[in-house]
Order: sequence, then C-alpha cells, then structure tokens
Amino acid sequence: MAKKPKKNAGEKKAAKPTDLSPRDKKTLGSLVTVAVDVVEAAQKKRDPQLAIPLRALSNVKFNKTKRMIEMGSAKNARQLFNLNQAKSYMQSLLVAKGCKQLIYDNKNCSLRSLYYMLKHTIAGTKEETFAGQEECDPIIEDMEVTLNALREELHLFAENRGNIAGPIVVTDKGFDIDCARMGSAGYSIPSIMEPDRIQFKKCTADFVLHVEKGTVWNRFNEDEFWKKHNCLITHGMGQPPRGVRRMLYRLNNELKLPVYCLLDNDPWGYYIYSVIKQGSINLAFESTRMAVPDAKFIGIRSMDVDRYQLSDSVKIKLNDTDIKRANQVRNYPWFKDKKPWQKEVETMLANGIKLEVEALTSKSLSFVTETYVPARLKDKDWLD
Amino acid sequence: MAKKPKKNAGEKKAAKPTDLSPRDKKTLGSLVTVAVDVVEAAQKKRDPQLAIPLRALSNVKFNKTKRMIEMGSAKNARQLFNLNQAKSYMQSLLVAKGCKQLIYDNKNCSLRSLYYMLKHTIAGTKEETFAGQEECDPIIEDMEVTLNALREELHLFAENRGNIAGPIVVTDKGFDIDCARMGSAGYSIPSIMEPDRIQFKKCTADFVLHVEKGTVWNRFNEDEFWKKHNCLITHGMGQPPRGVRRMLYRLNNELKLPVYCLLDNDPWGYYIYSVIKQGSINLAFESTRMAVPDAKFIGIRSMDVDRYQLSDSVKIKLNDTDIKRANQVRNYPWFKDKKPWQKEVETMLANGIKLEVEALTSKSLSFVTETYVPARLKDKDWLD
Repeated sequence: MAKKPKKNAGEKKAAKPTDLSPRDKKTLGSLVTVAVDVVEAAQKKRDPQLAIPLRALSNVKFNKTKRMIEMGSAKNARQLFNLNQAKSYMQSLLVAKGCKQLIYDNKNCSLRSLYYMLKHTIAGTKEETFAGQEECDPIIEDMEVTLNALREELHLFAENRGNIAGPIVVTDKGFDIDCARMGSAGYSIPSIMEPDRIQFKKCTADFVLHVEKGTVWNRFNEDEFWKKHNCLITHGMGQPPRGVRRMLYRLNNELKLPVYCLLDNDPWGYYIYSVIKQGSINLAFESTRMAVPDAKFIGIRSMDVDRYQLSDSVKIKLNDTDIKRANQVRNYPWFKDKKPWQKEVETMLANGIKLEVEALTSKSLSFVTETYVPARLKDKDWLD
Repeated sequence: MAKKPKKNAGEKKAAKPTDLSPRDKKTLGSLVTVAVDVVEAAQKKRDPQLAIPLRALSNVKFNKTKRMIEMGSAKNARQLFNLNQAKSYMQSLLVAKGCKQLIYDNKNCSLRSLYYMLKHTIAGTKEETFAGQEECDPIIEDMEVTLNALREELHLFAENRGNIAGPIVVTDKGFDIDCARMGSAGYSIPSIMEPDRIQFKKCTADFVLHVEKGTVWNRFNEDEFWKKHNCLITHGMGQPPRGVRRMLYRLNNELKLPVYCLLDNDPWGYYIYSVIKQGSINLAFESTRMAVPDAKFIGIRSMDVDRYQLSDSVKIKLNDTDIKRANQVRNYPWFKDKKPWQKEVETMLANGIKLEVEALTSKSLSFVTETYVPARLKDKDWLD
C-alpha cells in the first residue's frame, strides 16, 4: 500500500480572517461556532451534538405572504455518542473543516473536489470517511441549512451553465463586462453569483426574458431580440442551475426587473417555472435568496394550437409519465388555488398533447421572436 | 383538425445570393447543384438519385500520413423511384431545401428547429415527412457528407458549451472580446466557430491546455494558471462539442499553438483524447477540419498512484464496462502501434483502478495547477 500522503501538503493559508469579505467573515463565524460548541460540550462533559434542520417534505411549507417555499423549524439532533449518528456527525465536522479551509485560503472548489479533499482512511482502521460522493453531498446540504449559508457561501461551485445578453454591465473579478458586446454566446453565467464576486455596474434593460434551452436562446440572440425590446435574455440549459437562479433573483431584487419565462408547454416546463418562481422543494432553505415570486409564465400555452393554427405535425402525444407529473405539479400548494393554471393543465391533459417552443418554427423560424413573445408582452398575456 | 398554416409565412428573404460570404456562396452552390441534378435527370428522363457517401465503420480508415480518421470513397445511391429509398430521398431534398433557406435568410437554427420547420403532413396523405427528430438528424449528416459541408456551414447550431480564458482577443459579431478580461467563467465558446463568424484578432499565448470538466477548468481559472503560464485554458463539459473541437483545431492550425489535454485516467478520458486528436468514428468526414493530430495527453497517468503516493481512498475500481471500453480503445488503429499508450492501458487494467483529475485534490486543492501540470510541461512528459 502506498505511503499515506501528508494532508494538504503545500496548501498555503492565503488569507487571515481579517482580510476576509464581510460575507466570508459571517460564514466563517458560523463555522467556528460549530467547533466552539464541540469544545464547550466537552468541557461541560455534555455529549457533543449538532441541531440539523430537517430537510424533508414534512418540514416544507408554502408561505402565502412571501409567495415562496420555506423550511419549517423542525430539527434533528446529530450526536457523536450515538452509534447510528456518529459517522454522519464526524462527516458533518469534516465538511465544516473543509469549508473553513476554503474560506481561509480564499479558494472555491467543486463538490467532487471537496469530497476528494475530505475522503481518507480513518487512522488505525479500514474505515473510509466517505464511501462515495453520494454520502458527502447531503452532508454539505445539511451544513448549508445548519449554518444558514448557501453552498456558494461555503466556497463551493458547480460547472458554469447558462448565458445572458443585453444592456447590462457586470463587474466580475474587477473586469467590467458589457453583455451587449459579447457576440454569439453572451456572458457565461458563473456558478457563484454572490454580490461580493459579481456586481451589476450599469443596466438600462426594462425586463428579463428567460428561455428554457440554449438553442432557443441562440434564436433570440441571433435575432437581436434584446436590442429591439431593450431587455436581457437568459437561459439555463433546461432546469436552470443555482447560478442562473441567483442571477434572476438578483436582477429582480436589486434592479427591480420583471422576469418573464418562455418555457415548453409540458410538465417539465411547468416545473422549471415552479422552481424559478417559488423555489425547489428539495432545497427549500435557498428560496429566500433564489426564488422570484413575481416571475410570469409567457408560454407556450395549450391554446396556441388554435390561436396559431398549429399543424398536427408539431403536436407531441403526452405519455404516462407526463400525465402523472402534470397532476403532481398542478397539486402543488402554490398552483392549487390558481384557476388559470388549473385550466392550463386541464386543457393540456384534455388535448393529450404537449408543445415545445420550437413547434413555432413550423410557422416561421423567427415567429417566436417577431410575433409570439412580442404579442404576449404587449397584451400582458401570461400566467402568474 | 386545425387549418393547415401557410408554410414559412412571414419569413423574409433577407439576403440575395450576391450578399453572401464566400463560404455561404460555396455551400449554396453545392445545394443548388443537388436541385439542378434533379431537373437534369427529369429532362433526360433518367431516374433522379443522390450519391451519398457511406457513413459506416467499413468506410472509415486511419490515414497514417495525415494521422487522422478519414472516410473512404464508398457511396450509396439514394433513388426516388425505389420504394425503399423514396422517403429518404424526399427527406434529403427537404433538408437541402431547409438549409438553402437558412443561408438565403442569413439565419442559423438548431437541429430540432430544422426538424420542426420541415415536418409536415404530405398533401393528400396522412404521411408525415419525418416521424421524429431521430429520422431527421441522420439525413442532415448524409447531406453534410454529400455536400462536403460541415453542419455549421449548413447554418445549423447546437447549444453553446465550453469556455476559454487567456491572452487571446477574438472578434465575434464585430465585437473584440479579450478572453483575459472575462472574469469567472471566461468566453463562452459558440457552437458555430467558423472563420467567417469568429476571428482570432490577437493572441500572445504559447499553448492551449484543454481540461475535461468545467469544474476543473474553474480551478485553473481561479488559480490564474493561464496568466502564470501564458496559455489559453479550455474545457468542453466532458466530451467536447463540435464548437470546442473546431476552436482547438483553429488554435492549432491558424495560430500554431500546441494543444495539451488534461483528462481523467479512464477509458472515457482516453476516448475524449482520441476524438480531439484523430476525429470521431461516427463523423469521420469532419476530421480534416476538427482533428488535432498533434494534441498530447498530459495525464492523469496510472503511474501517478506511485509517483505521487496517492492514497487508496482516491482509487476507483474499474467496472466491467470500463474494462470492455478500455480494450476497445486500445485496439483503435491509431493507438495500436503506440507502445507507451498500450503500456498505459495495460497498467490501468493490471491495477484495476481508474483515477479522476480531482483525485489530486487529496494532495492539496491546487496541486494540479501548481505541481502536476507544470511538472508534465517542464519534463515534456506526455503521451502522444
């Protein structure tokens, strides 16, 4: 067996706590509190434990006033001296230690890298700290809710996905980037969109149009929709990643821009809208910093078949999964009382067909940019 | 049933053939030839037919001089008056017509949009021109080889994927974009990287480092590897899309930059390298404009377990699919005669383990940017 390497050899401690940004200081403070609690428990001869907010459907509720999904107050104790919890307790402290190190070093890393950083054979045993990444990721989510810190605040990134174009200047790593001068693919939306990293320097846009797919976004960018309608266009390669959702949230909250979503007329399009608008059920704690309750759904609609005399050729038959999923989505508490939404889903189910944004191509290639979306915006014809 | 809409209503014919770029003129010429051949055949009372180069493994060979995969000269006739071929003949002419329209309109679209554009019920029948997109995509590939035009030259795009950062200024839609001033996520590499759309205005980099994953790329960008080593860094979100391959090809061919690939030590990493270097087997005809035969593989290597005393914790056991795939890749004609490659694959199989780039995180977070890659480059320690 290979000699065990020294952990973190060559890793430099770049930043002193005094050099940290206010956000990092706050996150570090929460992390240190976790460690201090262990020491204090030991000194008081009490069993060390963490109080982890419960991440389960039973602890999620829809706040009608704030119009977003929220976590309840239920917590589970995670104890060191409990045979069933000792391992996850140890894993939680390991993740906290790793994130503290990232903040100290002023570095960010991927979930996968953090997993490799923390994975090792526990001295004197054959036991691994983590069997696989699937054991590490939920612990990271536990620490997010325990510390009330987004993953991005713990210095963890994912792959960059999604693009934006239009009249906005963002400051990224000190560089001013004019998203109206970014050519074919626009500004690549970073995974970490926190305000201490990315600032909005100047914006003259009137609204945001978010589209589902990158190829549809290319259509809007090629047709210079954002120039003609003085807006920003974004996409998130399907279900938008957290960076894109945080971007939409900040455009809506900091710059007060309305957000319109152009998505497919199918249960997956509905779900994307639901996540952008109300937050995700699995990660309800992030809603307050990611959900955009004011977001509007501007299509595609079931009525478009008649409204635009779409040919049978572009209709796609709903399958069993679609039908099941549609019924789930329509029963979400935030859709349940909304008659127009219920009617929309009912029409889709009654027709037995779904429609993609690209179906409008059968009218003409730029029908979506020149006719469909302008008509929806002019008539304020959307679902809320 | 809804009234059949008028095809392409509202579609404007933006460009006259005289306004077209030299590339578009050439592609349009090839497309018109297809139509002229039909007319001439009819006038001569001959059966109209297309000669479609055969896209099959039997018609692919490795050109040892050019060091890339090439298509052979075998062709299949596709005839109108042949019951088995009439439909695909009609589909081929439809695709040609659609692409001609795109060039005329000076627009680009996705494979999915083209499919919707061309799909309709054939007049007087209940027959659809295409049952699904899976019938349309291979016809597009047929037309690519028949016309000797890349998909991008037929004005078809995919989603933009992959990023680049470093000392290069690209001109995209008339805007100069300095990839050394692009912040967190770099310049988003467009799907269509053809020289009449994207030009390299200025570049002072010495080489290109291509990494497999976006999250690993983030590590290199955050550590400013490209600044310290005066290079460009690229990634393609796993198996690189055509836009990224075309970018690497052009950086290598136009700017004479060496291309080094940092990939996982597993059959999938090997295969990504194989496609970048020699071209893809399925789309052999694109090799002459996408393959980079000079590309080098700079790791991860099986020997790294000993060389860097990697702990058992980061080793991943090969599964049956890995083993099968490794044996396929090692038997590719372009790897078969290369002893160092054979030895590499044999060592991996003998060890029974694979290694991801992120495994180096167990040494330290920036070990890969500060130690591993610099050592490989300094020692010219790579596989060819």
